[in-house]
Amino acid sequence: MEYFPAPLEKLTEQFARLPGIGGKTAQRLAFYVLRLPEEEAQEFADAIMDAKRSVTLCPVCRNLSAGGLCPICAAPKRDSSVICVVADPRDVAAMERAREYHGHYHVLHGVLSPMNHVGPDDLQIKPLLDRVAKGGVEEVIMATNPDTEGETTALYIARLLKPFGVKVTRLAYGIPVGGHLEFADDATLMRALEGRQEL
Amino acid sequence: MEYFPAPLEKLTEQFARLPGIGGKTAQRLAFYVLRLPEEEAQEFADAIMDAKRSVTLCPVCRNLSAGGLCPICAAPKRDSSVICVVADPRDVAAMERAREYHGHYHVLHGVLSPMNHVGPDDLQIKPLLDRVAKGGVEEVIMATNPDTEGETTALYIARLLKPFGVKVTRLAYGIPVGGHLEFADDATLMRALEGRQEL
Repeated sequence: MEYFPAPLEKLTEQFARLPGIGGKTAQRLAFYVLRLPEEEAQEFADAIMDAKRSVTLCPVCRNLSAGGLCPICAAPKRDSSVICVVADPRDVAAMERAREYHGHYHVLHGVLSPMNHVGPDDLQIKPLLDRVAKGGVEEVIMATNPDTEGETTALYIARLLKPFGVKVTRLAYGIPVGGHLEFADDATLMRALEGRQEL
Repeated sequence: MEYFPAPLEKLTEQFARLPGIGGKTAQRLAFYVLRLPEEEAQEFADAIMDAKRSVTLCPVCRNLSAGGLCPICAAPKRDSSVICVVADPRDVAAMERAREYHGHYHVLHGVLSPMNHVGPDDLQIKPLLDRVAKGGVEEVIMATNPDTEGETTALYIARLLKPFGVKVTRLAYGIPVGGHLEFADDATLMRALEGRQEL
């Protein structure tokens, strides 16, 4: 015998499919939704479809956008001669929070990962090359994550950009601000030493 | 400047309102939904409204039901002379999993809790009294949680049932099966001793 009505079981299953949500948590969330006033449940359901339908990719930088150019590409004050290449829209948010960068972005939506069957055609690499080919770009900053896949992707794209004669740079490696030397791993320390700067 | 399109921010907020879901997790879930195929996002949104709209309370036992009598009240083989009173539909599921009980249920949808402004009128107590008043009920088993609020609720209802002359019982307290005496708390050990049975 089923313990709960089918529509409730179905909602639980839907929650359980979300990443990091187990069976017990999914059940708790489903019960919570069941107790919401109808308008609030409707708002939740609408938010899902609104996000799904109205969020598109910016035609220029491939960042998420609510239709048309994203706010960064549309901003007249930003420096369009520099493009910072990131793997994910959340990396754009992280860079923006640092308030140090005033150029444009390009979002790849992933990194090269043969293990997960992600090849160059699955990423937004072609639109990046098209942007650079159009001219006006002086520097491309590779800001993928400092792990194997991020590194590989950065090197791969740097090679493709070579023929265009633009400067290609990579974010600096080193010990994080506020970090402790004694807790830094060997690879980071080595990179910090290699990248040491004159005071 | 907002970092993400408004519909995405809104979906993140909706997720963040769910119990136990923090800001970072909400963002991760919102991004996940954004990457779902449209049909799957629609399924999710529909599941919310389906659950909200089609799950009702069983007119007899107040358990969740997909319209009309719940499967337990509708089952002809179950013993309608015994009613097990629980606080939550999930407690019905727990009891059913034990496969020992074959009577009917009554779901209160909460326990008395002056701290949280939950009084008798906020619970499904009246429908229970009506059921007992109709006759045919011989025993009411109080199966609220063994904490202060559960106890208070059980005692309160037991007093209301007294005039009807039905037998009112309470689930046994004691050491949990598979538990270790050395880890049992004092109150549990005391109750286990009080409730000792002849072998």
